[in-house]
This record gives sequence, C-alpha cells and structure tokens, in this order.
Amino acid sequence: MSKYWSETVKNIEPYVPGEQPKDKKYIKLNTNESPYPPSPKVIEAIKAAAGDSLRLYPDPNCDELKETIANYYSLRKDQVFVGNGSDEVLAFAFMAFFNKGRKVFFPDITYSFYPVYAELFGLDYEAIPLDEDFNITLDRFNDENGGIIISNPKSPTAQALPLKDVEAIIKNNMDKVVMVDEAYIDFGGESVVKLIDTYPNLLVIQTLSKSRCLAGLRVGFAMGHKDLIEGLERVKNSFNSYTLDRLAIAGAIEAFKDEAYFQETLKKIITTRERVSKAMKELGFRVLDSKANFLFASHGDISAKVLFQELRERGVLVRYFNKPRIDNFLRITIGTDEEMDSLIKAVKEILKV
Amino acid sequence: MSKYWSETVKNIEPYVPGEQPKDKKYIKLNTNESPYPPSPKVIEAIKAAAGDSLRLYPDPNCDELKETIANYYSLRKDQVFVGNGSDEVLAFAFMAFFNKGRKVFFPDITYSFYPVYAELFGLDYEAIPLDEDFNITLDRFNDENGGIIISNPKSPTAQALPLKDVEAIIKNNMDKVVMVDEAYIDFGGESVVKLIDTYPNLLVIQTLSKSRCLAGLRVGFAMGHKDLIEGLERVKNSFNSYTLDRLAIAGAIEAFKDEAYFQETLKKIITTRERVSKAMKELGFRVLDSKANFLFASHGDISAKVLFQELRERGVLVRYFNKPRIDNFLRITIGTDEEMDSLIKAVKEILKV
Repeated sequence: MSKYWSETVKNIEPYVPGEQPKDKKYIKLNTNESPYPPSPKVIEAIKAAAGDSLRLYPDPNCDELKETIANYYSLRKDQVFVGNGSDEVLAFAFMAFFNKGRKVFFPDITYSFYPVYAELFGLDYEAIPLDEDFNITLDRFNDENGGIIISNPKSPTAQALPLKDVEAIIKNNMDKVVMVDEAYIDFGGESVVKLIDTYPNLLVIQTLSKSRCLAGLRVGFAMGHKDLIEGLERVKNSFNSYTLDRLAIAGAIEAFKDEAYFQETLKKIITTRERVSKAMKELGFRVLDSKANFLFASHGDISAKVLFQELRERGVLVRYFNKPRIDNFLRITIGTDEEMDSLIKAVKEILKV
Repeated sequence: MSKYWSETVKNIEPYVPGEQPKDKKYIKLNTNESPYPPSPKVIEAIKAAAGDSLRLYPDPNCDELKETIANYYSLRKDQVFVGNGSDEVLAFAFMAFFNKGRKVFFPDITYSFYPVYAELFGLDYEAIPLDEDFNITLDRFNDENGGIIISNPKSPTAQALPLKDVEAIIKNNMDKVVMVDEAYIDFGGESVVKLIDTYPNLLVIQTLSKSRCLAGLRVGFAMGHKDLIEGLERVKNSFNSYTLDRLAIAGAIEAFKDEAYFQETLKKIITTRERVSKAMKELGFRVLDSKANFLFASHGDISAKVLFQELRERGVLVRYFNKPRIDNFLRITIGTDEEMDSLIKAVKEILKV
C-alpha cells in the first residue's frame, strides 16, 4: 500500500490469470488456450504486415477488421466493436453501460473478472446464486437491476444455456443492457448474435483467443445495436485511440477468412472433449456437460486441491479455483489427444486404478 | 445519444486522433510518426514470433520486456511498467494516482488527451495557462492540487522544459504524483528518468511510437518508484491481464537492443529538423524552438487554417488544432528530407514567394 495510490487502487482486488510458468515444460491445460496453432494464413498475413509500415499508426477505427467480422456474422460494420482481447472489450462495456448506484447482476459462479471490473469502476453488483446443479435461477434476473452480464457457455462450468433462457433474460430487461459473454460459443453453444436486430439492449462479446487459436494476439470483439457500439467507441476513444496494433489487425482479418481451418480445429477439439469426458466419467468423475473447450470435473475420492497438486507434480497443469462451491472442481482445458492421454494416465496413477 | 449509455459515456468528449486518410497517398506530417522504418532486427524478431506459439497467451507480466527497459535505463525491473501504447499507460496512471474531488493540474496548452482522461474517470482538473510564449508558469504548480501531468518536450509546441523546472515541480509536490510524459524526449530534451531514485512521487511515461519508429506496434511504458509501478499493475490487472500481444513484446525488446540504428535514426531526424526550421524561418514563419520530431509554426501573412487546407490540397497533411491560443499554428512532423523539401516547395507556392 502506498500513500500515492488512488482510492480506486487501494480498494481493488486484481484478477489473477491462470499461471504461465517458466520453470519447466508442462502439459498446459489451465488457461483454455487452443492446443492447435492458428491458421497458416494468419501467420502469413502477420509476417506480411511485419515491415516498414509499423512506423505508422494503425487504423484507429479498424474498419477492415470490423467489415470482415460484420460479413462473417451477417451484420453491418456499425454493429461491430473490436478491442485488445475480450477482457478490454468487457472493461469498456462496463464503463459504457453500467452506472454507479444501480446493481449489476451476474451469476455467483462465473468469470471471476466481472466483480473485478465492477470494483474498478466503483459499481455495485449482486452475484445471483446458481442452483445446486449450477443452473441459472432465471426469475432472479427479473429483479430490479442496473444491467446484466452472463457468460454462455458458462465460465467455468462449461455448460451451455438454452437460447430461450438467454432470450428471456434479455427480453425481461429491455430498459438496460444485457451482455452475453460468448468466449466459448463456437464449441457447441447457441449464439444470441441472431437476436441482435430484435433486442437493442443486447451486447454479445466474443474473442479470437479460444476457437481461433489466437490467445497470443489479443483480439476480442462485441456485436450489438449500433447505439451500443457507438457507446463503446466513445469510451475507447477516451481511453486509447489505437487499441489494436497493425499485426493483430492483419492476423485477425485472416482468421475469419480461413473457415475450413476453423471448422477442422473445432471438430478435433469437440471430438477429443467427448472422448475424454467419457473416460473421466468411467474413472468416477462427475463431469458437467461441456459445450466449451474445457471440462469442469469433480471426484468423490480425492479433493480437487490435492488432485491439482498431484497433477502439477506430474507435469500437467489444470486450473483450480479456491472459491466457495467450486473448490472441489478442476477446470481442465481440452488439449491434443496425446496431451489428454497423458492427463488420463496421470489421473489413473494418482487414483491408483 | 442512447438511453443505454452510462452517465460516463453521455458526458465524455472523446479524443480525436490525427486523420489517417485512405482516399489517396499523402505526405503524412500530421501524427508525429517516424519517416524511417523500425530497425530490421525488430522486424526479424516479430517474424520469428509469428508462429504456432500465438495460440498461447503472452506473459501477462511482460518480464523480459521490463527487464530490457530496466537495463537500458539502469533501473530495476520493478521500476518499469509496460502497456498498449503510452495512451493506455496514461489512462491507467490517471486511475491509479488521481482522486475525485482533488484537481489534477496540467498546462492549458498540452496533449489534448489529458482532459479527456480526466472526464472519463470523473476527475476535476484545472488547465494552468502557459505564458504568452508558451512557457510554464512555474509558481502556479505550487497551488493546492491532487496531482500533476506535464509533457516534456511540450506537446504540441515542441519546446523542452529545463530539467530544473521539471524538478522544481516534482519537489514542490511531494505529497502527490507528478507525471512527466516524455513521448518526445529522445529528440533532444533532458529526461527526468535520472531523478526516479530521488523522488518517489515521479512517474515518467515514454513510448516506442516516435523515436523507435513503432507507432503501429502499440507499446508504451512508465518508469518510477516500485510502489507507483505496483499501483499501475493493480489497475492493469483489474482491467486486462494481457495488454501486450506476443508480437509487440518480441518487437519491443529488440527495439531497445539495436542502439546503433536508434541513434542513427534520431540523428537524421534532428538534422532535418534544424534545416527545415531554418528554412521556414527564412520564409517568415515563427517557429518555436523544437526538441521533438515536429515543428510548431505560425505565419503572419496566412492563417494556419488556410495554410492547412492549401497544403492538404497539395497532398501534404499537417496537424491543425482548432483551439484557443494555438489556432494560428500548425504542427508539422519531421519527415524525410525529400518529404520536407516537398513541404517547403508547397509552402512557397502557397505564399507565392
């Protein structure tokens, strides 16, 4: 604590991302990265952009990238916002659409960055409890609130919400913004992008970090009514004119063009997920139904904390959250088949089966 | 205006960056970019980083880059913060060190993003008038305030502040943070980096966009007492865990290693600046003494606004600020010798001399 810190800094509890250890090589199943490299066309585009033009500022409006995303989702360019990872997009959205003194609602078990944003911007919030099977308690989201954010598929449980449930929340809250964080939507959930023209209060947030294998490039985006997008632009342009560098813009554009590679990669991850989910259930795990690129699992005979440590010692990194209600679960990213076989082997060794 | 916008969004007036026109090719002297490409070693490093590892998140702490900058300036790693352009670093610094209800001081003629940050974060501020020659009125900065930000060399006038004046401001405000924005320091000003170990309230902000020819890569940094750096980290980690992508980190590290290229580029720009400054004075311009990579100039016979438009029509873009006290000046980036010869030729044509 320093006397020079603002009241904001004194009061916040920063988000802690999954570890990126440098001590040795791990099988890294802890931060939901893709086990597959980005499309070779993305790499090519980045290399082509790595030249003399780096002396010049990027396009502050990222028009070409927005156009590309808009075409991909059959939207107009003014319905798309892009940012330096979906975390930045979420931060701007909290500033753009939520107000002090009016509680922001999100589930009690969710992406743990949401309460961090709320505290950073001095917003009140209420964490609405999921039921014991981690399902959304729909009617609670009808209570008086100042805006809502939910993730779908749900973080960190991997479960998908039925489209009709998400739509009900949006419809019952027409006077404020409902944000749907679809970081993992490509792995099997049903997106609300198709509802954008129906609901002017809907903001959908996605990322290139997971399904497009580009966690290292930092590109996220939001889609919604043009007035919401304009709100985000106003915040962004009061914060940093150029949030995406030339290389990220070039790579991101190409990522949306190589559909064949995208679909192929998704298929591999989904196939592996289903196989591993089954294998883990056979080993006695409770594995929640996943529509994401990770599994959320718990075992009756060994605590998640111990299992996490034992796996770590064997060179396999998974994510453990020391938080109420989920402290006996592990979040396990879907890696390659080979990596997942190593995981299963290590688990068998630990369980002595 | 949308009913969904927060009070914050409704009230802000976003910053407007210099135009990046796409209609035709201009001689671009309007956004203080370098006319020279980045070091070939930077390009090489980026191309080497453009590969499969882009599937993985970058190092959220950017340790290697911080270490590199720390070594370059003879500091410790915990005295360095890095961000997505110095604009982002400044935004985080406003959040980290300034408080509501206590006026932030900056000169009335300065980087026009400062009041934008203040409004975005709901901070009060006072723009302290420069004297008629655009010099800082030192004693006014002793008045009761909640923190100070000044740019040196001054934006947009290009003049350098004497080190003793900057030090006086820091010394007279030991109970709050004094930020010195040194975006243009490498072009001839005297940096206060050497004072960091003396003043725990000093935060120095620099960028790779200007002197290191990397506006398109988006890397800025701050240096100061480790407690200030920790404050910045806390804000950053409550906003976006990974603000620098893998390519930006790789390129930025190399930019600090190729000292020969850096010095050579600086020398060329400074030589051109002195030559063009002299030539413009001979054409009847008032040219303020520049220690930056741009000139701030005014002419008695033609308004800056008209000159700006006439130059634009001739394919030369410079920056015109339609603001009190400086609306008869143009800010002209130092380009290559060839570009500056075109500028002089166009000016002569317009002035009919």
